[in-house]
Amino acid sequence: MSATTAAAGTGIVVQKYGGTSVATAERIGAIADRVSRCIEDEAADGLIVVLSAMGKSTDGLVALAHEVSRRPAGREMDLLLATGEQVSVSLLGLALQDRGMAAISLTAAQCGIRTDDAFNIARIQSIDTGRIQAEIAAGRVVIITGFQGINSKHEITTLGRGGSDITAAAVAVAVGAASCDICTDVDGVLSADPNVVPGARLWPEMSYEVAIEMASSGAKVLHPRAAEVCMAYDVPIHVRSSFHGREGTWIRGSEQMVMEQAEVVGVSSDRKIAKITLLDVPDEPGLAARVFQDLAAEEVNVRLIIQSASSESRGRITFVLDDEYVERAELLVEQWKAGGVASDASIDHDVAKISIVGSRLASTPGLAARMFAALGRERINIDCISSSEMKVACVIRGDQAQRAVRAVHDEFFPPDGDKSPSGGRERGQ
Amino acid sequence: MSATTAAAGTGIVVQKYGGTSVATAERIGAIADRVSRCIEDEAADGLIVVLSAMGKSTDGLVALAHEVSRRPAGREMDLLLATGEQVSVSLLGLALQDRGMAAISLTAAQCGIRTDDAFNIARIQSIDTGRIQAEIAAGRVVIITGFQGINSKHEITTLGRGGSDITAAAVAVAVGAASCDICTDVDGVLSADPNVVPGARLWPEMSYEVAIEMASSGAKVLHPRAAEVCMAYDVPIHVRSSFHGREGTWIRGSEQMVMEQAEVVGVSSDRKIAKITLLDVPDEPGLAARVFQDLAAEEVNVRLIIQSASSESRGRITFVLDDEYVERAELLVEQWKAGGVASDASIDHDVAKISIVGSRLASTPGLAARMFAALGRERINIDCISSSEMKVACVIRGDQAQRAVRAVHDEFFPPDGDKSPSGGRERGQ
Repeated sequence: MSATTAAAGTGIVVQKYGGTSVATAERIGAIADRVSRCIEDEAADGLIVVLSAMGKSTDGLVALAHEVSRRPAGREMDLLLATGEQVSVSLLGLALQDRGMAAISLTAAQCGIRTDDAFNIARIQSIDTGRIQAEIAAGRVVIITGFQGINSKHEITTLGRGGSDITAAAVAVAVGAASCDICTDVDGVLSADPNVVPGARLWPEMSYEVAIEMASSGAKVLHPRAAEVCMAYDVPIHVRSSFHGREGTWIRGSEQMVMEQAEVVGVSSDRKIAKITLLDVPDEPGLAARVFQDLAAEEVNVRLIIQSASSESRGRITFVLDDEYVERAELLVEQWKAGGVASDASIDHDVAKISIVGSRLASTPGLAARMFAALGRERINIDCISSSEMKVACVIRGDQAQRAVRAVHDEFFPPDGDKSPSGGRERGQ
Repeated sequence: MSATTAAAGTGIVVQKYGGTSVATAERIGAIADRVSRCIEDEAADGLIVVLSAMGKSTDGLVALAHEVSRRPAGREMDLLLATGEQVSVSLLGLALQDRGMAAISLTAAQCGIRTDDAFNIARIQSIDTGRIQAEIAAGRVVIITGFQGINSKHEITTLGRGGSDITAAAVAVAVGAASCDICTDVDGVLSADPNVVPGARLWPEMSYEVAIEMASSGAKVLHPRAAEVCMAYDVPIHVRSSFHGREGTWIRGSEQMVMEQAEVVGVSSDRKIAKITLLDVPDEPGLAARVFQDLAAEEVNVRLIIQSASSESRGRITFVLDDEYVERAELLVEQWKAGGVASDASIDHDVAKISIVGSRLASTPGLAARMFAALGRERINIDCISSSEMKVACVIRGDQAQRAVRAVHDEFFPPDGDKSPSGGRERGQ
């Protein structure tokens, strides 16, 4: 029986649950109850569940690896980390079977998730859906390990932090799912972190592009690559709570959206970053290229690049990167100093990035100015600024991040003002 | 380069380390140091390391499974438990690589350990050594997950408790190893548990047959099936300490043994047992067969069977089984009572089994009598007795087990007497 024949109703649904949602045996039981209800209530033709490792278990494995090795990496590291999801999928399988449901847990090897050879940061190349489709056709809930794959030599690879979202998106695309549900510990995509801004708004829908910018700017609701994958194949994403059944945020193509999208959709901040400034960079063509080629070769993700042309900052290259890459970047800084790329460099860990994300930001005059003004009223100094069509980001002092988010959020979403999702547009400009 | 070409020196050595030996990151580091020294010092043509899961981690996974399921078993249980060894092999791989050694960690799937389909209690059917041989030929230490395999459908299976010994033996046989080292937390095979009898003796060598009886009678040095596998293909086993490099006990064919074997080799006890007695069993042919067929069908391992023909115990069948099987046996007892096999049954948990193991026990008059006399002097009542060519076992009260072991050990190995491995033979008879 082919899966195409089976997919006669509303189609297959993929649900991804993150580490917090499966942190304990009790929560896995709750997910099993929820999955049982999904099967009973909803008319999905099949359910695929993608899981992360339980709670902080991946961090525990990483800590163990650091106890036995100075720089744990490569093939054995992936073999180690892949056990985390294998534990959570088998426990959910046991929990569902205990509830009398037909369920099967599959590792990435067993369900044919092929990646390239880049251990620790692999990319999915293809999914052979034969086994998955056969299990769904046989009436089973299919539970798949997130975050991992196998390369062409059958070695286990992992996709890097947040990789379970990518697995869910890739599986959803491969089976032609009706939707990819990202089930998490918040209610959906909000206009700010509700822990920082209690009045943050939940968006009922959002375009892929805005979701990608939100995710890249530190909003942590889903991995940007997951949104990219779904966007490419037009599979809707539903970011929703793991703990209740209410609707969350639908992410889809802007042409399919019911409401007009607000200009400013979210205010986010990221404190786990550092700023590196190279000083006295000679005015020679190719030097900036070399800096960023070297960073790319060491697999350092650069979040922001600011090179100003003003006279007092001549010969200065500033970039912002995630904390985890600082050590590697510092080694490069020493090489650059030795090689005449820069006379000196400053590394600042006490910084934060605050961003507004939305559509048409650059082409709507005054939005960035309103952000800067809100920060100014709070006497928060802006160290540097970077902007794109969908985002304006400012680097500020680390300890001012929360206050900055509240001030900027209040500017675009006044607490006593219009509560509609497109609120905040009546002001300013 | 084929592995056969490489195997020109002393051959390949397989080393198995149990859970206690890899219980912490620190101990894994110590095993890595030891493996490095083995490679430097010994002229082995290749080293294969088989590992158990870290310390009590398998028990932790079992406990988690019981939190999500009332009776966790089957395919998902094996998928869960198999992660334990995947963690320990990848950590040892990282630790060896950190020491500059070429090493590769392989799961059972990656090194082709094929089993039958009996999840939770699978048996190894074959090992495709291609990958193992290629890695050894490439100069790598090969680290293999013990306790697990894959069936013909590539599902992960496990071999049951103590299964890592079986993996090590099967791998040793498959690659034609020079020896299979069982590295453990004792110095080798001793005449009794040193925690109970501080003066217990270490045997330098022992026949496969005696080792199998010792292992089956509760001596816990190695899994009896591992000794059976090595015996069938004449691969010597070396039971030795994980913590120092001194020689332990060589287990091999009796024709290759240097010393003559002592009659009594070990005194062991087992408290994790229960005794079930069926009463008023009608004197009909086939009833005893039915009892033990039913037990076998439920996969209950019976340790001892005692059916006496004396008039006062007519119609009585007694058997001893491991604690873990009692629940299943109790269900059968109810069926037997309902089906007229027995009028009633008694189940006694407060029992222990004490055994002497050796060669030619039955054919050497007086050895059993010396055991009974030693127990009598301690006023320990013998509930029932079972004997075979290589073992005499008595069931006694549970709380008397340690005292019984000391008394019987003193009888055959007097504390101030002859210290040679064949000691104790000058007395009695």
